[in-house]
Amino acid sequence: MTLRGLIERKRDGGRIGPDEWHAFAREVAAGSVPDYQVAALLMAICERGLSPEETAALTEAMLRSGKAFDFSHLAVGRVGKHSTGGVGDKVSIVLAPLVAACGAAVPMISGRGLGHTGGTLDKLESIPGFNTRLSLAAATAQVERIGCVIIGQTSEIAPADRKLYALRDATGTVASVPLIAASIMSKKLAEGLTGLVLDVKTGIGAFLPTLEEEIAVATQMVELGTYHACPVVALLSNMDFPLGRSCGNGNEVTEAVAALTGGGPPDLRALTLRLGAEMLVLARVARDPGGARTMLEHALDSGVALEKFRAMVEAQGGDPGVCDAPRRVLAQPGLRVPYVAPRHGIVQRVNARLIGEGITALGGGRRTMEDAIDPAVGFELAATPGDTVRGGDLLATILARDDAGVAAGRATLDAAIAIGDAPVRLPPLVSHRVTAAGVEALG
Amino acid sequence: MTLRGLIERKRDGGRIGPDEWHAFAREVAAGSVPDYQVAALLMAICERGLSPEETAALTEAMLRSGKAFDFSHLAVGRVGKHSTGGVGDKVSIVLAPLVAACGAAVPMISGRGLGHTGGTLDKLESIPGFNTRLSLAAATAQVERIGCVIIGQTSEIAPADRKLYALRDATGTVASVPLIAASIMSKKLAEGLTGLVLDVKTGIGAFLPTLEEEIAVATQMVELGTYHACPVVALLSNMDFPLGRSCGNGNEVTEAVAALTGGGPPDLRALTLRLGAEMLVLARVARDPGGARTMLEHALDSGVALEKFRAMVEAQGGDPGVCDAPRRVLAQPGLRVPYVAPRHGIVQRVNARLIGEGITALGGGRRTMEDAIDPAVGFELAATPGDTVRGGDLLATILARDDAGVAAGRATLDAAIAIGDAPVRLPPLVSHRVTAAGVEALG
Repeated sequence: MTLRGLIERKRDGGRIGPDEWHAFAREVAAGSVPDYQVAALLMAICERGLSPEETAALTEAMLRSGKAFDFSHLAVGRVGKHSTGGVGDKVSIVLAPLVAACGAAVPMISGRGLGHTGGTLDKLESIPGFNTRLSLAAATAQVERIGCVIIGQTSEIAPADRKLYALRDATGTVASVPLIAASIMSKKLAEGLTGLVLDVKTGIGAFLPTLEEEIAVATQMVELGTYHACPVVALLSNMDFPLGRSCGNGNEVTEAVAALTGGGPPDLRALTLRLGAEMLVLARVARDPGGARTMLEHALDSGVALEKFRAMVEAQGGDPGVCDAPRRVLAQPGLRVPYVAPRHGIVQRVNARLIGEGITALGGGRRTMEDAIDPAVGFELAATPGDTVRGGDLLATILARDDAGVAAGRATLDAAIAIGDAPVRLPPLVSHRVTAAGVEALG
Repeated sequence: MTLRGLIERKRDGGRIGPDEWHAFAREVAAGSVPDYQVAALLMAICERGLSPEETAALTEAMLRSGKAFDFSHLAVGRVGKHSTGGVGDKVSIVLAPLVAACGAAVPMISGRGLGHTGGTLDKLESIPGFNTRLSLAAATAQVERIGCVIIGQTSEIAPADRKLYALRDATGTVASVPLIAASIMSKKLAEGLTGLVLDVKTGIGAFLPTLEEEIAVATQMVELGTYHACPVVALLSNMDFPLGRSCGNGNEVTEAVAALTGGGPPDLRALTLRLGAEMLVLARVARDPGGARTMLEHALDSGVALEKFRAMVEAQGGDPGVCDAPRRVLAQPGLRVPYVAPRHGIVQRVNARLIGEGITALGGGRRTMEDAIDPAVGFELAATPGDTVRGGDLLATILARDDAGVAAGRATLDAAIAIGDAPVRLPPLVSHRVTAAGVEALG
């Protein structure tokens, strides 16, 4: 393979064949091609796109550049869930043990926060001792034993994707629908799944700028799933404002524990149930969404889901006390400062993107993959769009390390929260459902 | 400057401002930005183009990233010539001393061969001792003393362009009209010229694939010249078949010496006179092309041009014996093997691109900038398109190091030379003339 030839072909809008993609992924994984050539190809892909066949071949090539889970010996269905990234989104932490408690296996490879979006691994690592760096063999054994695991993308899993992803971030080539779809699916297909549910975020806090592109990504991932014999259902869920009330890392785990005991904010529970119901149907644990929902609600409200979470935390070396007294186990912020409404009115918006950027400003997110994270900082929202508030009412609590953090948090909330007089019409929590049968617009 | 921001803007078709281009060129020259980011930006430029203002700003930014000749103290006009690259094109070797002999100053920064095109520096370096790596100060002194110099692009001259050019070759981003124009002009403007003549090659052996793009490059360079107060005249000359009869390195110097004494093949002399006449008029040494031509012909036929060449060779450390007995001074090939016509007929074509690639196959060109060159190998063509030949007539002589070279040379000529029965209509030597006044189609 001469990479320059592939670059020139893609530059001129031509197609690259499956064998060429496989050779490319192998050489990227081996580190035997220079970054600048890879960067040039990535930009040409951004500008010229990939055909469905090319996207499928690239996905498979990245998948095969490493190892994958093999659960073919298990009788039970294996289902995964992936979110395109949001703010306050702790659904995976609830969902993995919940769905496992209902009888499906959930071998989950999660990501870290970057830019304004949080990451499941960062949140879980706020639990003292919790280890997300398991080998494939250890993670497989854990799934066999307790039904769920949440780990990071090790160097074993889709190493070509790991390298491409790092380069994309630095070279302005992240925002490409086929590259996004191929990157996500190469990791998700490594989970050895029989079904996958995608939570594609929409709105101001979403990664992609337009609904059109979000539907395009969802559709491409559904197609990639079909191509690789892994049925995919994608739900498009709103991310104009954060999900739930806790935004940060440790405090999101606290809120996830509340949801696992049947409590927590209603939007978090609702989205968890919607996604979980799709997963149980895909895993053939439930016959239909209604039956699945009943199972899920029972698992949450009975404490069975929490016990599964406890088993997962213990299996991955974390302090199980987080299940009983999360605030005592998790690091707490030095300062908790209330932020109150400046006037009477209706909360018009709580801008998810600005809140996400504010978490990073507080030290709870990262600007580059090398940044360390403070698990204790963030925001506790007390009001959400549509709420009527009076001047002086608590809108949020800033969790900060120091006075500079408080100032940054205050500036964030000043910009993110708007209070006005107009009535607010909330967007639907889930607006579209995309399957192999097509795109369905929901309520 | 955040380079990622510029990359993303250009990726989306946006414009980059003059200050941003200057910062970019400074950082590229300093080596303080990673190659992969530069490669991504280059590919985005390939796909999205540059506005005329951006091309002018990038050109100036690359020029200012280094030092330039300063000849403002000279009363005489300084004129340059640049070719977009051809096969058998030894015009610069004749033209620099010829135009200097007529009273203009010619401070020429030339290039090396790459791919199928030859390079003036490689050809001159086949003269034992000839040094093309002079400092700007030494080259300036030589121009002051004898009126001409031919050097390579030192690290002093447009270092940002040097780095970009090396990266473009590896990343499939060479074929961009604004990048080509900016690269050439940033070096040519460093020559401190009062006028510049461009020889833009057209046809099968040209670097650019279509006449449309060749005219676009010529027009952009004329505009860049106007913008930088350096009048530019571009001639589009045919490169369907090699210029002259000698193709290689040392043997091209031999043919250049023949032209400098009033001999040599007619097409080489004709193109040299056309380009030289434009240069003398731009330098205000001659009032019109007719007068310029008379001066040039006299300089060639009287031996004055050859004596200027001798002075240049001596000044740059080369063996001046090359002027009297070039074959005795220059390295000669181990093997000279005739290649004869397989049948009676008319020579339909001698494919310049294939001949150029054949020189590389023989060891006389380079595939990467690190390759060493054998100055003795190449081809001597005995027939040219339109010639009627009989079976067994000499078509060419292969100059090779060994039997493998002979085989490669024979395969090249088998593919490059076609003999048929149809009459051949030769393309005009110069088809278009592009100036600030517009594009003029010629004979």
